[in-house]
Parts: sequence; structure tokens; C-alpha cells
Amino acid sequence: MSLIVQKFGGTSVATPERMFHVARRVARTRRAGHQVVVVVSAPGDTTDELIARARQITERPSPRELDMLLAVGEQISIALLAMALQEEGERATSLTGWQVRILTEPVHTKARILDVERGRLLDELSRGRIPVVAGFQGVTASGELTTLGRGGSDTTAVALAAALGADVCEIYTDVPGVFTADPRLVPNARKLPYLTYDEMLEMASSGAVVVQTRAAEYAKLHRVRLHVRSTFEDTEGTIIGEEPMEPVRSVNAVTHDLDVCKITVQDLPDVPGVAHRLFGVLAEAHVNVDMIVQTASRGGRADISFTVSRGDARAAVEGAERVARELGATKVESEEGVAKVSVVGAGMVSNPGVAAAMFGALAAEQINIQMISTSEIKISCVIDAASVPRAVRALHRAFNLEEE
Amino acid sequence: MSLIVQKFGGTSVATPERMFHVARRVARTRRAGHQVVVVVSAPGDTTDELIARARQITERPSPRELDMLLAVGEQISIALLAMALQEEGERATSLTGWQVRILTEPVHTKARILDVERGRLLDELSRGRIPVVAGFQGVTASGELTTLGRGGSDTTAVALAAALGADVCEIYTDVPGVFTADPRLVPNARKLPYLTYDEMLEMASSGAVVVQTRAAEYAKLHRVRLHVRSTFEDTEGTIIGEEPMEPVRSVNAVTHDLDVCKITVQDLPDVPGVAHRLFGVLAEAHVNVDMIVQTASRGGRADISFTVSRGDARAAVEGAERVARELGATKVESEEGVAKVSVVGAGMVSNPGVAAAMFGALAAEQINIQMISTSEIKISCVIDAASVPRAVRALHRAFNLEEE
Repeated sequence: MSLIVQKFGGTSVATPERMFHVARRVARTRRAGHQVVVVVSAPGDTTDELIARARQITERPSPRELDMLLAVGEQISIALLAMALQEEGERATSLTGWQVRILTEPVHTKARILDVERGRLLDELSRGRIPVVAGFQGVTASGELTTLGRGGSDTTAVALAAALGADVCEIYTDVPGVFTADPRLVPNARKLPYLTYDEMLEMASSGAVVVQTRAAEYAKLHRVRLHVRSTFEDTEGTIIGEEPMEPVRSVNAVTHDLDVCKITVQDLPDVPGVAHRLFGVLAEAHVNVDMIVQTASRGGRADISFTVSRGDARAAVEGAERVARELGATKVESEEGVAKVSVVGAGMVSNPGVAAAMFGALAAEQINIQMISTSEIKISCVIDAASVPRAVRALHRAFNLEEE
Repeated sequence: MSLIVQKFGGTSVATPERMFHVARRVARTRRAGHQVVVVVSAPGDTTDELIARARQITERPSPRELDMLLAVGEQISIALLAMALQEEGERATSLTGWQVRILTEPVHTKARILDVERGRLLDELSRGRIPVVAGFQGVTASGELTTLGRGGSDTTAVALAAALGADVCEIYTDVPGVFTADPRLVPNARKLPYLTYDEMLEMASSGAVVVQTRAAEYAKLHRVRLHVRSTFEDTEGTIIGEEPMEPVRSVNAVTHDLDVCKITVQDLPDVPGVAHRLFGVLAEAHVNVDMIVQTASRGGRADISFTVSRGDARAAVEGAERVARELGATKVESEEGVAKVSVVGAGMVSNPGVAAAMFGALAAEQINIQMISTSEIKISCVIDAASVPRAVRALHRAFNLEEE
């Protein structure tokens, strides 16, 4: 008998039919002799609808009241899913974040989890019941409702799995697992049976978000084994766990990200403190900067290019222009027709030549590389957005990712 | 400075415009120097919509899960109303039933309130804030969500007023107060400035439901002064309080109820235990019986007539037919074209002749009386439904109710 946490997202519970589909899947796991704890998100567009209702009242709802409002979405899901499980003959108990006591810091709309009490959950499990827990929400020590922000339900699931010492935390999605590349671009992309936490994190930050980054970090920290799998197909998905002892491949996956805007500040004075000033201003404006490249100095002047998501582009350009005026830079340029392709693999550390192989594959396709950034287990290149399908296919082929 | 509890129903918060209307009214009371605690119901049709969603999953949702689901409605209201109050420049804090700790018995869908903790409310008030409390919901000692059933938000408001020793509990509705008769039938009906708890209760049970019966009973028990008034007009409504020392009038109001079905069981044996058997069966079937009349015995046989609401008619006839067969009664008849008119007044106790005056007024209009029932402060007659407008107008005139 294993203890399994199963997390279902909003699309999985958007209609009564899907709710029953989820209920039957949970029931199957229970009947196979396992203990199950279910975590569920708000149904379909409920969260967006609630935000829209708040917006009808005020453009700037107080974070506390917004949390009070949004926590409603998951409460609807847990009640309906518990009913569906009961209709399927299972014994189920819905539990809100405060009923479990998912304790968070006293911060609204993006609270971090401090502790999860196990008492109520263990009590329900010991009585043969399935706890159906509201994702995304918690409670402070003084009894205030909080929400966890983006990807919060994944984080709830991982936190419950960690607290309970679960054997695995299953994250159900609308894809059958994590692939070597986007199957829409690469028809022979292969489902990966296994990934390390770091690979998952690098993939998430390079465009392939299957498990939310925060949840993946939490899983890594508490060594919670994840299983990313399909709500709709009954096949094994991708396991995410600790570093394998000896990675076989240098590259495990190719990812791409179209949500990229490249901004270049030209002719900045090449003196200490310039980058600090520029990115300090952007950080104050809450702009999330991804890649950064500084050109070599020419006559005491250098260019700095960086990428941001398109949603942050306007704020980034405004900040950059302010710094440019201040420091006497000549120009700020922003370019939207770009994208990022990356290769990711834990085995990269011990395999030199991966970067060269990547650049070679892109060169053979006549694809120009505009920016490069590397980490221990990832290499990313900014290229022309139109070249992305060709680039992903070429890289997938170059690293033999279609082979088992 | 007074402490005032203000309760707003679902129609008062059905749209953002109405939400702001309510917020401005609350703010006005605050700015007049009073402390205000707000209680609010679920917006508009939210509760019905949630029930419909449960029905899509199961015809018989578990009461616990139904409470979990329905509690969502008021949570939406409190969050949005707190936002609207903040938008109006007030400091407001939304509070769920469990955050206040409105402690109920461990019963779902119709829990009774056992206790209301004052700590959090007093804390918010002392910091100059307006607590906006979810009506209709509570929490058990073990942390389970409960709901209070029909009229629950009125009961919440009265319970908070009692716990806090509020000066008055204002119940806002879509009418300006309680009238001497339905103004749609009697154009010169007069708004009553004052009613006793008992008059209110008798009026509620005879068709004029302004404050839910349970809330009125709670108010009577804890001597909470009620003020029933309009959400939309800024006029004084009707105060409901303790018995006045010397009632001036014998009759204060005429009420009518069209939701009546009359059922007659003919030729029951006139022996002890017959009524007990008949109404025992109906009680088991959860049929709420209102008036009961037994005819004098003829040849050892008697008829029993009783009234129920139309929703209970089918179950009542089925139960009555079972008992009729068992006891050898000849026939069960049900009649829907009937209605009930009543006169209510605390002064009736010390004024003989009210019944005679009532019957006289109906006789003068050639209206036949089919059943009569009396209490200390109410006389009700079942008549032909089509005669109701004439009957109500005649009784209103007969007791001079249009006069101040």
C-alpha cells in the first residue's frame, strides 16, 4: 500500500463529466489498495471570473479581500469532487486550506507555505476516507485566508506529499508527460520516463512549464517524487526525482519559448556600476529579466542586451530609457520577433562539446544566434522566432532524442 | 454612538451598482458616528446556481458537502462588499462564519447557532473598522462548515446583535417596512411604526414574511430590537420589539396567504387516536400542517380538514389516503382554490368581539368561510382564493387600519 497525492488542475474539473472522470481515476487508485489524498484547483475559468467580478468593484482590490474572494474557487471544486467521489461509491471528505491547516506566512495573493498539519489528513485516511483538499489556499497563524499565487495548487500538492511522506505526488495534466520536445513541432518527440528536479526547473524556465517552478523547487527541497501524467490517458507519465547516479545522455530535451522580447541599450559607458543601475531600476519596476549579454567594450562604450517576457516589455523599455538618458546611452531598441531555444540535460556537466554541437546544428540550418546563455545543465540561444520549428527539429535530431 | 447590525439580503448585493448602494448606506451610518457590523447574504441567484451545480453531480448531495459548497455564496458577497466599502473610503474587513466563530450544533444544512464569539468583532470595531460578516454559515466545535438553512442570514444578524448587545438590528429589504396589509391589494395600507415579536411571528406564519420566523424567534428570545426597512428608500421602517404596555388597537394588520391547499378526510371513525394516527403519518412524511378543523360527529363518523402549503399537498394526500384506507374513511379530497386571510394584533387578547367583527366583515361581502382557526393574537379564515382581494380590503376597512 502506497500513500499517493493526486493533483488535478482546473481544466480537469471544468464540467460535471470531467469531474466524474477524475473521481473514477481517484477511485481506481483507492481500489488498487492505495491511500489517496486529492488536491484540486478551481474549476475552469472560475478564478478569472472572480477576478472580473472584483474588477467591477475596484481596479485595485485589497489583497486580503481578493484572497477571500479567490479562495471560493477551490472550495467549489472540493465540494463537487467529494460529491462525485461519493456518487462513485467512495468515502470522501472535502477540506479547505484552513481545515487542513496549511499554514502560510501572513502575506496575501502570494503567500509561501510554512507548515502543513498532518492530523486531520491522517485521521481521514485512517478512517478509510479520501481527503479532497483545496489547492492554492492557506491560512495564517491568526486565521486569515491567504492564497499561494500562480501554480499554487501544484505547490499545495507537493507540500501535502512532503508533510505526509507520500510515496509519490502525481500531477495530472492535459499532456501524457514531459517530452523531449514539443510534439506539435517534432512529431517523433519522445515522452521522457525520468527527469531530475534540476532538469525540470531548467525546462520550466526555458518555456516547457509542466509543473510550476515553485512546486518543482519545493519538491526538490523536500525530495518529493513527482509523477507528471495525463488526466485523460491511463499511461505512465514522467517521473521527476533526484539526480541519477550516472546520466546516460548529455541532452534530454529541447525546449522553446516564444514569449520573449529582446531589449538592447546601445553605447552605455563601460564603467563599474552600469549594469547594477540598469537592472536595479528594472527590478524596482518588477520586471523579470531572463538572459543578459554585454558586448565587449568599443571605445569605452558597450551594449547590453537582455530578454524579458512580452508582458514586461513596456515596463522594461521605460526603465531602460530612463537609465539610458541618465547615463548618456544613445539608444534603446526592443525586438519582439525573437524566441529562445534551449537544450537541457543533467548529463551536460560531464559532457564537453554540447554547446558546440548545438551551435553547429543551428548553423547547418542557417539560423543566426543573437544571444547565448548557459547554465550547468542548459544552453539557451535567442534566435529569429520564425526559425523556431526548424531549430527545435534540428536540435532534436542532432542529439538523437527520438531514440530510446 | 450606537452599535448597529445591518443585514442586507441577496437582491441588495446582486449587481456591482447595488453593492455600491449598500456600501454607501453603511458608510453613511458609520459617518453619523455609529459602529456598524454588516451581515450579508449570497448575491442574487448564487445559492440556486450552486445547488444546480451540485444537482449536476448527484440528486442527493451529502449535507456536509452541500454546506461546503453553499458557504461559498456569502464568501463572495463579503469580499466584494468589503472592496466596495474600501472604495467608498471606509475601512472594512470581511469575515467568514468560522473566522468570527459563529459556533453551531454539528448538523448540516439547518444548524442552530450555539454561540457567537465577540473577540474578533470587537477587535475590528475598536480599530475603527467595519466587520462584513457572511450570513447563513457557521462552524462546529470541530471545525466543520455548517449552514443555517432558510432565512439563515437574518438569524446570523440577530445572533451577532445579541452577542454584541447591539442597540438595533436593521434588516434591509425591498419593502419600506411592515404594512397593515399588502399595499398591492390595499392602496391605503399604512406602514406600521411598531410591532411586537409575537405579532411579527403571527404575521410571518400567516403569509407576511418580512423577517424569517427563526430570526424573529431568536430576536424575541434575546430581546434584540429589529428595524425592518428599505434598502432603496431612506425612510424609517418598522421597529419590532417587546410587548407594548397597553396596546391601543385590537388589530394591527391583515395578512393573506395564497400558498394554501385544503385537504379533507371524510367519514373517519370518531374514536380516540384517529387524529393522532393521521397527523403522525403526515409528520413522518415531513408535511407541515397549518390549520386543522374537525367536524362534529354524525353517526360515529366525523370529517377532518387541514391545510398545508401547496408544495406539501401531494405528500399530504398520499399520507391521508393511506390512513383513510386503514381506518375505513370514505374519501380524501384536496382543494387548491383556497387561501387564508388573517387579522393580527397583540391587543386582541383584551378586546373581545374581534372574531365577530371579522366574520361580519366577510359576511357583508358574501364571502363564505370554510375553516377558522384562532390564536391569542390572530384569527385566520380559509376562504375562496378569488375572494382574497375583496376580503383583505373589507377587513382593512372594518378595523380602521388606514387611520394613524
